[in-house]
Amino acid sequence: MQTFIKDLITKNDSKIILLVLDGVGGLPQQAGAKTELEAARTPNLDALARDYACGLHLPVDVAITPGSGPGHLGLFGYDPKEFPIGRGILECLGLGLDVRARDIALRCNYSTIRDGIIKDRRAGRIPTVQSKKLTEWLQDGIKEIDGVEITFSPGMEHRFAVRLRFPDALKAGSDAINDTDPQSVDKKPLAPIASTPQAEPVAKIAMKLISQASEILEKQEQANYILLRGFSQLPHMPTFEEATGLKPLAVAAYPMYRGVAKLVGMEAPDIEGDLREEIDFLKENYKNYDFFFVHVKKVDSYGEDGNFEAKKEKIEEVDRFIPEILELNPDVLIVTGDHSTPAVMSGHSWHPVPMLIKSGYCIGGLSGAFSERECYRGELGVIETRKLMPLALAHSRRLKKFGA
Amino acid sequence: MQTFIKDLITKNDSKIILLVLDGVGGLPQQAGAKTELEAARTPNLDALARDYACGLHLPVDVAITPGSGPGHLGLFGYDPKEFPIGRGILECLGLGLDVRARDIALRCNYSTIRDGIIKDRRAGRIPTVQSKKLTEWLQDGIKEIDGVEITFSPGMEHRFAVRLRFPDALKAGSDAINDTDPQSVDKKPLAPIASTPQAEPVAKIAMKLISQASEILEKQEQANYILLRGFSQLPHMPTFEEATGLKPLAVAAYPMYRGVAKLVGMEAPDIEGDLREEIDFLKENYKNYDFFFVHVKKVDSYGEDGNFEAKKEKIEEVDRFIPEILELNPDVLIVTGDHSTPAVMSGHSWHPVPMLIKSGYCIGGLSGAFSERECYRGELGVIETRKLMPLALAHSRRLKKFGA
Repeated sequence: MQTFIKDLITKNDSKIILLVLDGVGGLPQQAGAKTELEAARTPNLDALARDYACGLHLPVDVAITPGSGPGHLGLFGYDPKEFPIGRGILECLGLGLDVRARDIALRCNYSTIRDGIIKDRRAGRIPTVQSKKLTEWLQDGIKEIDGVEITFSPGMEHRFAVRLRFPDALKAGSDAINDTDPQSVDKKPLAPIASTPQAEPVAKIAMKLISQASEILEKQEQANYILLRGFSQLPHMPTFEEATGLKPLAVAAYPMYRGVAKLVGMEAPDIEGDLREEIDFLKENYKNYDFFFVHVKKVDSYGEDGNFEAKKEKIEEVDRFIPEILELNPDVLIVTGDHSTPAVMSGHSWHPVPMLIKSGYCIGGLSGAFSERECYRGELGVIETRKLMPLALAHSRRLKKFGA
Repeated sequence: MQTFIKDLITKNDSKIILLVLDGVGGLPQQAGAKTELEAARTPNLDALARDYACGLHLPVDVAITPGSGPGHLGLFGYDPKEFPIGRGILECLGLGLDVRARDIALRCNYSTIRDGIIKDRRAGRIPTVQSKKLTEWLQDGIKEIDGVEITFSPGMEHRFAVRLRFPDALKAGSDAINDTDPQSVDKKPLAPIASTPQAEPVAKIAMKLISQASEILEKQEQANYILLRGFSQLPHMPTFEEATGLKPLAVAAYPMYRGVAKLVGMEAPDIEGDLREEIDFLKENYKNYDFFFVHVKKVDSYGEDGNFEAKKEKIEEVDRFIPEILELNPDVLIVTGDHSTPAVMSGHSWHPVPMLIKSGYCIGGLSGAFSERECYRGELGVIETRKLMPLALAHSRRLKKFGA
């Protein structure tokens, strides 16, 4: 949030719901055909689009495909180019480890070493169930090193994540440390070397971690060594509450998105389930917060799978929950995505993301439905994603005049 | 290209064609009438506009009319405000002299001097044929000065260009040297004075050039002195290939545009002829490059002449070549201009330039034809010209995700 906006923030008892259909933006499967949003039957979203404000937002820049981290940071009001989120952090978040300001996050591989030479960088892609057991052993054997809390989380096959949590008494250090992966086999692993003095305490912990893990894994045929990659630390940034004055709650069944919410200091309790459980959780907690980030993962997942039909149906399912959300009578309801995930691309894309804002202060009447093409006709135009939060604050009358 | 984009570039075997109709943007001849693009019968371009992505781009800024240099630099992905191209360089390019990183480029006038006083700054606008002969004499008499290669190129009437090419062993110097033109008659010509120490070797060469030229021209009645203007050197900028990872070919029958392409390190072989020859050349070389800058000059020329009808017909001629270009099956085809040249203005203008992108990843269905008005309805909006290359890279899937 830009400084001049922070100075304009005022408080009231309004409530804002940000409903994020992950990867909602799509494309026609061939020229002239419908997009996922157009093919989906969404009478509730279409009615909102007709009566309220529509547009699209651009997460990073023209032509730039955002990852989930940058996409969500933008939605929360931050410039994702100003606050890059490292690979280690995203791996930790994805595997359910939250990351705080002083932590160092890592993504790791099990690998195979013989006589000091890496023979397989992925330990033969050992089965996930075996990797999970090994990770438990590591956690049992290594709980802290020199006062730094070490937390492991298992991933798929040879992958896992590690979080180094420095106690308040110790300096957090820096993430300026190379990967230890030699990038090809029949080479020695690299030592983790600090490239700044601040990173030295972290490099020291990393070396001890490798050596202690090697002892625990000594008897393993394949997974007898660990490679450390993507050392990363959170950029210094204000919390969401500091930046907006809003007390936020994340409603997200997927750990990764609770993690992204926690990065900016949101409360993000564990939830199991899908949309039904998320909406119930939203209702139960509606009294106690100002701002609700409600995250629907599967729209993106089906897009990533290239499954146009399933993505369409998931959007239709979300549409059926809209009346329940409207019953809460939020002052501002925003429906959008963090990026586009066209099924035809089987992945994230650079295309601007459709959005709608319902509040008492919209022009409306410009879009005929909630879709990419109809959002292009809307009153919000195509704006940077990070300007959506200022709009949410304005529509909830939480922004004062600039100048007298 | 911004640094963060450079980090995202990946390579594949996709091909991109950028078809530039120089000065394509136009205006109605009176309120309510059609523009050149609207008046032209362009069924092929219109079909592309209906099915694929349209918008407009802004070469420099709102209200700013670009020259050909800035217009093309923007198309190639550079910020023309960050990389100003001096008048001397544009004059050299226009007269067929390519300019490299270490060169100093000049535009020059033949003038008339009597007793050390300039009596005619343009030597009575001597006929081009005579000026050409004099320039040959200068070239015969002056091939190098103090190890610096001197190349002349004749222009229209009293105008010609000079390029100073410093050998690798010498410092390139700087272009911080005043014009020697006193700007009005009955004054002494100015000496070329270096305003920085780096420019001193260049000023020294310039002084010797003036004196040697004066000896050669001594017997001339009118053109007996040369005035030097627009000392300029290329700004430091990455080559197109460094910035984009694309291996580029310029297909341009006009020397000026081959020159602009060479500024950014494109290969730009000489071609004679017009569209037919350009398209043939494109086809012959299609296998060996990733990126093709195809330049059509005459659209702009007729606009500059104020000839609405001829500009319209030239656009129609381009349209008839579109099926041949599509037969090459490029992954991305972009059709646009480097700036607008409305016939009603007989010159370049500040109006945003219509563009269309055909790729497998467009929404489409928003524009009814390829024209200014219909492009305003398109999904690409009005963007800075320099963002067109990132879009070309995204549409050819040559840009990785930003963040995970």
